[in-house]
Amino acid sequence: MHCFLHNHPGDMMEKEDASSPLSRRDLLRMIGVTAGSAAMYQAMDSLGLAAESPYKGPIDLQGAPQGASVLVLGAGMAGMTAAYELRNAGYQVQVLEYNARAGGRNWSLRGGDTYTELGGATQHCEFDKGLYINPGPWRIPYHHQGMLSYAKRLGVPMEPFFQVNYNAYLHSSHAFGGKPQRYREIKADYQGHVAELLSKVTRQNSLDAAVSKEDQEKLLESLKEWGALDKNYSYVSSDAGSDRRGFQKDPGGGLTARPIPSQPTALKDLLDSKLWMGIPTGDTYDMQTALFQPVGGMGRVGEAFGRELGTLIRYNAKVKAIHQDDHGVTVSYEDTTTPGTTLTAKADWCVCTIPLPILAQIPMNVAPALSSAISAVPYASAIKAGLQFKRRFWEEDEHIYGGITYTDLPITNIGYPNTGFFSGGKGVLLGAYIWGLNAMEFTAMTPAERVQKVVEYGSQIHPQYKQEFDNGVAVAWHRSPFTLGCFGMWSTAARAKHYDDLCALDGRIVLAGEHASFLGGWQEGAVTSSLDAIGRLHQRAVAQGAKS
Amino acid sequence: MHCFLHNHPGDMMEKEDASSPLSRRDLLRMIGVTAGSAAMYQAMDSLGLAAESPYKGPIDLQGAPQGASVLVLGAGMAGMTAAYELRNAGYQVQVLEYNARAGGRNWSLRGGDTYTELGGATQHCEFDKGLYINPGPWRIPYHHQGMLSYAKRLGVPMEPFFQVNYNAYLHSSHAFGGKPQRYREIKADYQGHVAELLSKVTRQNSLDAAVSKEDQEKLLESLKEWGALDKNYSYVSSDAGSDRRGFQKDPGGGLTARPIPSQPTALKDLLDSKLWMGIPTGDTYDMQTALFQPVGGMGRVGEAFGRELGTLIRYNAKVKAIHQDDHGVTVSYEDTTTPGTTLTAKADWCVCTIPLPILAQIPMNVAPALSSAISAVPYASAIKAGLQFKRRFWEEDEHIYGGITYTDLPITNIGYPNTGFFSGGKGVLLGAYIWGLNAMEFTAMTPAERVQKVVEYGSQIHPQYKQEFDNGVAVAWHRSPFTLGCFGMWSTAARAKHYDDLCALDGRIVLAGEHASFLGGWQEGAVTSSLDAIGRLHQRAVAQGAKS
Repeated sequence: MHCFLHNHPGDMMEKEDASSPLSRRDLLRMIGVTAGSAAMYQAMDSLGLAAESPYKGPIDLQGAPQGASVLVLGAGMAGMTAAYELRNAGYQVQVLEYNARAGGRNWSLRGGDTYTELGGATQHCEFDKGLYINPGPWRIPYHHQGMLSYAKRLGVPMEPFFQVNYNAYLHSSHAFGGKPQRYREIKADYQGHVAELLSKVTRQNSLDAAVSKEDQEKLLESLKEWGALDKNYSYVSSDAGSDRRGFQKDPGGGLTARPIPSQPTALKDLLDSKLWMGIPTGDTYDMQTALFQPVGGMGRVGEAFGRELGTLIRYNAKVKAIHQDDHGVTVSYEDTTTPGTTLTAKADWCVCTIPLPILAQIPMNVAPALSSAISAVPYASAIKAGLQFKRRFWEEDEHIYGGITYTDLPITNIGYPNTGFFSGGKGVLLGAYIWGLNAMEFTAMTPAERVQKVVEYGSQIHPQYKQEFDNGVAVAWHRSPFTLGCFGMWSTAARAKHYDDLCALDGRIVLAGEHASFLGGWQEGAVTSSLDAIGRLHQRAVAQGAKS
Repeated sequence: MHCFLHNHPGDMMEKEDASSPLSRRDLLRMIGVTAGSAAMYQAMDSLGLAAESPYKGPIDLQGAPQGASVLVLGAGMAGMTAAYELRNAGYQVQVLEYNARAGGRNWSLRGGDTYTELGGATQHCEFDKGLYINPGPWRIPYHHQGMLSYAKRLGVPMEPFFQVNYNAYLHSSHAFGGKPQRYREIKADYQGHVAELLSKVTRQNSLDAAVSKEDQEKLLESLKEWGALDKNYSYVSSDAGSDRRGFQKDPGGGLTARPIPSQPTALKDLLDSKLWMGIPTGDTYDMQTALFQPVGGMGRVGEAFGRELGTLIRYNAKVKAIHQDDHGVTVSYEDTTTPGTTLTAKADWCVCTIPLPILAQIPMNVAPALSSAISAVPYASAIKAGLQFKRRFWEEDEHIYGGITYTDLPITNIGYPNTGFFSGGKGVLLGAYIWGLNAMEFTAMTPAERVQKVVEYGSQIHPQYKQEFDNGVAVAWHRSPFTLGCFGMWSTAARAKHYDDLCALDGRIVLAGEHASFLGGWQEGAVTSSLDAIGRLHQRAVAQGAKS
């Protein structure tokens, strides 16, 4: 426990910025977590901003050379997209997958599942029937049309995912006495104060140089409405303000119905708390409505893909070496159910989707530029914990139905289930989505210790945790034997130097995966990088086929 | 058609405010429509703001006098709530309902249904199986715990309702050449410009009198993040800005992956368009996430309530007169299946939920104050149209999954279905939610003419309308024989003078319904007003029972 306590946000703050209740690192972490990987990239001044997929409908791979074969390494979203399309185009396809299941990071843990991480610790998931946690990706934005399209073709139904819940919390252990604030309160008050300040300076003619008088009138009209200001352009306790942030006493019916307005938070307290960082959580392109999740868990997509590909996938196949020459590609692999054996697979071409931290350790004869690129991308060390509780107290006691609470505690997120609303009974929530240094320290713990710590932290926000906790799992991605990390984190410098090399065809080999995209950490990056890669591979195969 | 064209927004503008592209009335209408009835009230300076229900769990009505009876008039949400609780408490209950079904305004029109309005026009709904439109209420906010609780007890499952869809449109026929703008673009740009302006004046020391230097630094930090500003505090074409408003070319995977940022809308164009009015649509207390809709249509709640109450409800019973004396209440009614007959029902007490425009026409011996109150509340004249299309082009072509498009055209709303996503096949959307003068004019048309006009207007936003339109229905609430309007609109003055009189017990009679609440137009107003009313009725019944 010692190492963990060392990394308490309070300690980090001291090291970095004693004048501020949240350290710069906390800020970065909170931004990153608030908007997933995308905003983290932004804060890192990277070009790798998350956004719309360039998916333009089913790929056209006409004219595959007779008998041409492709070896696909990895049965995650990138590998299975490649295998599915190349098979449909007439290629002979074989997929090698280290894991015993399809999907890769597209994965849901359910009751009865077991998972063994590096170091040998095995977790037995004890969730009730129908409950699950997604250790990897958990949401699909409306513009990730590649993912949505494959899910549809595979018959996987979608349901809405709530990113923003106005009744969930923003929480800072250093502000408001540690008491979580409702999202609606922070958002309404920040907007109200901003509108009031800008109205004030507009009426004091401070905008005269920048905005015409006519437009100033229009601006004032808009600020009053948008900020819920009163007739004097002030953001005060009022019905209008309470109609955003919530009332002290809510209106109802009959003779006891009259509402009582609530009191806004002072601007100074808002700014000091830094909780404003959580406001744009649903504004970023990847987190805007509409978002979806597959019914039954994200893993339903990978499972359906695996069924579709059937015996094309060889499971428990750990790649040991990749070799190409003028005639084709040969891959040596171990059947992990029979340790020590070395098998080989051969094909004309190879689509390699193996995550970079693992690929970097596999001998492969490619150009130095590609080898350098493979080593240039560190992987995020995220951890997710799923906690089952005896009842859905967040719904029953606090009227939080889906969405996310954000906190400056190491757990960073509490994600409420976006399904089974009002169902009563047990429920599983995302108890933590841990990043950075905290993730390193949680990774060093046993799974049981991780879960215990997550419950301890979460009980600062939901005191019901201690009474209602049932069981939990915690997946530390740096200990995943299959990825050795959560997803590739490109710096701007690394991307400028290595990205094109990473994506370029190298002889008969091409890489694909979220690491070969500008949508890092997103399944859509895997899907679109795969389609881009096999499109180029196909062109070369056709050209070569024509030559031979 | 002549009268309709007279009311084109352009004409209204001329009458009211020639200098502005939207008239004040348009503004009011758009606000009202943007946030439903609640913000309309606000614009009307009324206290009737929509907000959280005071529902505190199941009502306790212990000690009902032996054999005491209650006559409930109306089998809408208020009447059925009263009947359900009073029956459970041991009262003898009978419900008289004019309509041939339970639910009142809680109602879904499905294929095979027919509906005859005042004047005799009958509509035959031709929607495909599983598709529906809710002519009345269509969403339930998370804090309407009364409605949610009864739905749960009645076994009606809920699914999410999208109020805000960042990829849906804000549309002004007077701005941007009539081209609809994506919600995400307008919201991101307004926020960006506001943040830039406030940053500028902060750095020019214009806030020195209002905000401390230390807080100004924090404010600047927050504005940069919240407004997606660049390092110079400018809102410009950038990756950060595009990560809110969307990119010109979206990032993807592989070698064709690099994103191209989009160009923000100029502040002047934003202000001129007035589309900023649509931004807070999901910020108001009644429209915040999480919102829900019953699976299968809002009418599922009323239908389940009707089944639960069974033969307690007498349908086709049109109340003609209500008379109370020292011994009880006698109600004369007509069985509309046998016109001309007069029947009577008697009970010790009466809960009257008949909508006020109808109740005002029924003889009833109550105090003059109550009679005055009944006549003091005009009803909204809203119209809703449901349109079936041959395919879900809004999903397939435009990637709009659920949520609402807002327009200054008379149709005001296009509501996309929040269910059956990615299902292919036909779909029904809300083609119009018409208010005010426009509603009066649409009410004067035949149903077929209304539908035709709605399709014409909608095709300005979705050109696919004309090609894909299949069939439709249009319910004009002022022509509903059962309500003569959509919901009660209290002015501040009327509420101050009449509200308490309307809700007070008058001898043996008490009124309930959304009109007897501060949640006008919301089902939660009906439920909580009913619980408040029967609580008081029960107290009097117990007191009287003890006396006799």
